[in-house]
Formats: sequence, C-alpha cells, structure tokens
Amino acid sequence: MTEKVALREVGMRDGLQSLPPVLTTEQKNAWCAAEFAAGVKEIEVTSFVPPKLLPMFADAEEVVRHALTLDGLTVSALIPNLRGAERGVALGVRELAHVLSVSEGHNQNNVRRSTAESIADLKGVIELRDSLETGRRVKVMAGLATCFGCTIEGHVDERRVFTIAAEVLALKPDALMLADTVGYGNPAAIRRVFREVLDMAGGVPVGAHFHNTRGLGLANVLAALEVGVRGFDASLGGLGGCPWAPGATGNIVMEDTAFMLEAMGFDTGIDLERLIEVRR
Amino acid sequence: MTEKVALREVGMRDGLQSLPPVLTTEQKNAWCAAEFAAGVKEIEVTSFVPPKLLPMFADAEEVVRHALTLDGLTVSALIPNLRGAERGVALGVRELAHVLSVSEGHNQNNVRRSTAESIADLKGVIELRDSLETGRRVKVMAGLATCFGCTIEGHVDERRVFTIAAEVLALKPDALMLADTVGYGNPAAIRRVFREVLDMAGGVPVGAHFHNTRGLGLANVLAALEVGVRGFDASLGGLGGCPWAPGATGNIVMEDTAFMLEAMGFDTGIDLERLIEVRR
Repeated sequence: MTEKVALREVGMRDGLQSLPPVLTTEQKNAWCAAEFAAGVKEIEVTSFVPPKLLPMFADAEEVVRHALTLDGLTVSALIPNLRGAERGVALGVRELAHVLSVSEGHNQNNVRRSTAESIADLKGVIELRDSLETGRRVKVMAGLATCFGCTIEGHVDERRVFTIAAEVLALKPDALMLADTVGYGNPAAIRRVFREVLDMAGGVPVGAHFHNTRGLGLANVLAALEVGVRGFDASLGGLGGCPWAPGATGNIVMEDTAFMLEAMGFDTGIDLERLIEVRR
Repeated sequence: MTEKVALREVGMRDGLQSLPPVLTTEQKNAWCAAEFAAGVKEIEVTSFVPPKLLPMFADAEEVVRHALTLDGLTVSALIPNLRGAERGVALGVRELAHVLSVSEGHNQNNVRRSTAESIADLKGVIELRDSLETGRRVKVMAGLATCFGCTIEGHVDERRVFTIAAEVLALKPDALMLADTVGYGNPAAIRRVFREVLDMAGGVPVGAHFHNTRGLGLANVLAALEVGVRGFDASLGGLGGCPWAPGATGNIVMEDTAFMLEAMGFDTGIDLERLIEVRR
C-alpha cells in the first residue's frame, strides 16, 4: 500500500491575487479543468473578497459554477470573513478556506481586524456550516497565516501559533492549514511547529502552505512530511513569483512537489506528464 | 556546541564552465577574495583542463596563485586526470578534486575514457600525492559524478554507485564526493545512497554535490544532513543555471543553503549578510 499525499492547487487564488488581472474567466476555467484532468483533486479556484479590493476575482461566481461541473473535484474557495462564507455556501462550494493571521499586524493589514475578531468570525463561519442540512454541508478549513514569520512583524513566536491553533481547533474546523505565508520557515522550525500542532489536532488533518522565497520550499515539505503532514498547497509553475526570478517567491511548484513525492514513493494521484503539459 | 557544516564554493568552476568566458581573471580573483572574506573556507577556483577544450579556464594558474595568497583558504581545483593533478601540485594547490562518472556513457563523453580507466587514473593521482614530502602534501577528493541519474544513460543503478565507491575508497582518497550532476535525485534516493556510502567510508568524509534542476536541491541537502553528511558544494547565486530560469538548473544556491543551515542551528562559519553583498 502506497501512502497518499494530497496536493491542493492554490495558484488560481494565491498566484493570481499578486498579479494584475491577467486571465480571462475562460482561461481560468480551462486551467482548472486541465489540472483536474491531470489528477489534482482539490483546487482553490477563487477568493470571495469584494471585487473592489481584488478585481481579478470579480468572476468568482462564474469560476466556481464551472468548477462544480467537474465531477470529483473538491472545489475550494478562500474566504476572508463570514460574508465570503455566505457567498460560497449559496453557490455550493465544497470547502471554504478561512484565513486569519497569527501575526496581529498582518491580520490588520489583510482583513482590517484583530486576530481575536477573526477567530470570532471563524466561529460564525463554523456555525453557518453546522446550520446547513447534511446534503449541503460545506467543509471549513481554518488557515493560519504567518506561522513562521511575517513581513510586518518579522519574528512570530511559536507559542502564539500554538495558542491560536488551540483556540481555532476548539471551534471544530474540518481541517487546519498552517501557512508560511512569506517563506521565512526552515526545516527545523517546520518540524517543531507541525509536530506540536498535529499532536494538538487529534484526528483533524493539518495541511501545509509553503512559499519558496529562499529556495527552501521543498526542504520544508520534506521536513513536514517527516513529522506526518500529508497535505500540501502548491501552485502550477510556482505562479505568484516575481517575474524576474521565476519560482523564487511564489508558492512551491506543483510539478516539482509532485515529482519529489512520487519519486519518494508517495501516491499523489497526479499524472506528471499531463501536469507538465498543462503548464505549457 | 554547535555542529559544523562545511560549504564549498564551486561556482568559479562548475558555474563558469557552462557559460562562455564571461569573467576576467581580475573579476574571478575579486569574487574569490570576497567570498573567502564572507567566511567560505573552501573554494574550487578553477579546472585544470586543456584551455582548447574549456577556454574560460585558460587563466587557471593565475587564479590559483592569487587564491593561494588568501591565508586560511582551502584552494581546490578540479582535475579530470593525472596531468591536471601534476599542474595542481606544481602550483601548490591544497586539494585536487578528481572527477569520474559512475555512468559509463557520461564518463566517455566527459573525459573520453572508460570508468575503469578513470579509476586507474585516480590511482596514479593518489600515488602522486603519496610521493610528495609532508610539507607539500596535497589532499585528493574523489568525486563520483552522475550518482543519481545521467542525461545520457538515464537511470543509474545504485549498486553500481556502491561498487565504484568501494573501488575508489580502496585507493584511500582523503575525501569522497557524491554528485547528483544533473539534478535527478530525490530525498529517498539521497538517504539510501549516502547512508550506505557513509557506512562504507569509515572515517573518510563524504560530501554532496547537488543541482537544483527540479527545485529539490535543498530538500536533498536536508535528506543528506539527516543521514550524516556534513559537507556540501554550492555556488553563489546558483550560477550555472539557465539564464531564462534563474536558480532552476545550476548548483544549489550558496546563500539559500547557508541560510537554511544557520536557521536550523548549524554553524557554517559564513556571515550571511556579507555573503549576500558579495552576490550583489
């Protein structure tokens, strides 16, 4: 029996949000369909943020509707708050990725509220989930950003990560995701933090979201794998990186991550050759 | 006590050999001096190959003479054969990096002889070392290229790596270096091969030379660290990569490697801020 590792495409959201609107809705839909066909089972297809703030996601509804036609795909969308969750639920999204930052400064910048207010907001999202009938039940993934450092506050205390993870786990999300939002993490810190949080999480899956700022992305994946993480965010071509240094600052690269995992004997369900064709 | 890891700069040789002659002798010397000042204690400064084949190393003698003026620097040079070793010894180089390929096809392409002939040649180099008086004693590092795959032969059998490593170790080199010359390695293979070869090597240091072709460079470093490797080749800025995809195909990046190791609590002796200034 080969052990499975789940890779989750986030380029349609994390990659596109750092660029000016570059893709048409049709291009996004084609990307989504092609990557699903290559074996990627979970895609964060958009972000439910006000189009005034992030105009590249003005087509969120259309992109989600298309993605929901792909049978077997877990359609995920990022939500910054309860209002985003309501939009997602109305459409029938399967997974809502709620994100709050461990770093107070980053959270203020990102969603204009304190971390405590975002935790209260997450509580509202989970209550919304619990109010739905079984057939319409959505999963809530609680994302914790800036777990390994922050561009605004610099160092982030690991004890703060553990405190917030405990508060969030008490709300009973369906999954937790720890993010090295700015790519400051290193394998030793990754091992320490994930080991502790996996322990706290009991059976709740804990995924990892890494960036490749200093070339450490896959080393951090390896460190997380070693302590038991079996779900990773990645993006096709590492989209989101600086155009002057491909792969340098974006998400970890989906193709490289899938190659590494498959070469190490894990089963990602991905057809590498097809995936590389999608990139082209 | 912090554990030490030795990083060896190879960009002046491995980086430059894949480019047209781009640096003047003065630029090479300035690079060498600045990187030594930033704390890099071992630099492979050139290659003793016929200038007709690799014109960028026509200034090998001058570069070595300058490097030898830097007190405390281990001046290393690549040698493809005994003739190169004689040039190195005449100049007073401290370390000769002899390279042969585990893949027969790659060795034929690279030095126009069989792997067996290259092993015999290495024997001659080690006899030359043993014939020197104590004061002039040079170290011989035996490098094995294409240990994790080959552009010509594709897959390389790990048993062949072990057989050749055993033959080479029997000649009593001062150090062994296993190279993933083309960047096909993955952490699982790295762990298996290095664990076995470290075991065979007894006290002889076994270093690692990785490329970053698929973004796995630092993950492979982490895997090698875990099984006990404490010496790595790297190059400033990952020089040697394709100009269209910085960092994609060159050696692992010195700055990133040093950052990762220092962040994990290892002592590389390198001043990261000074190193990054050198890159600029």
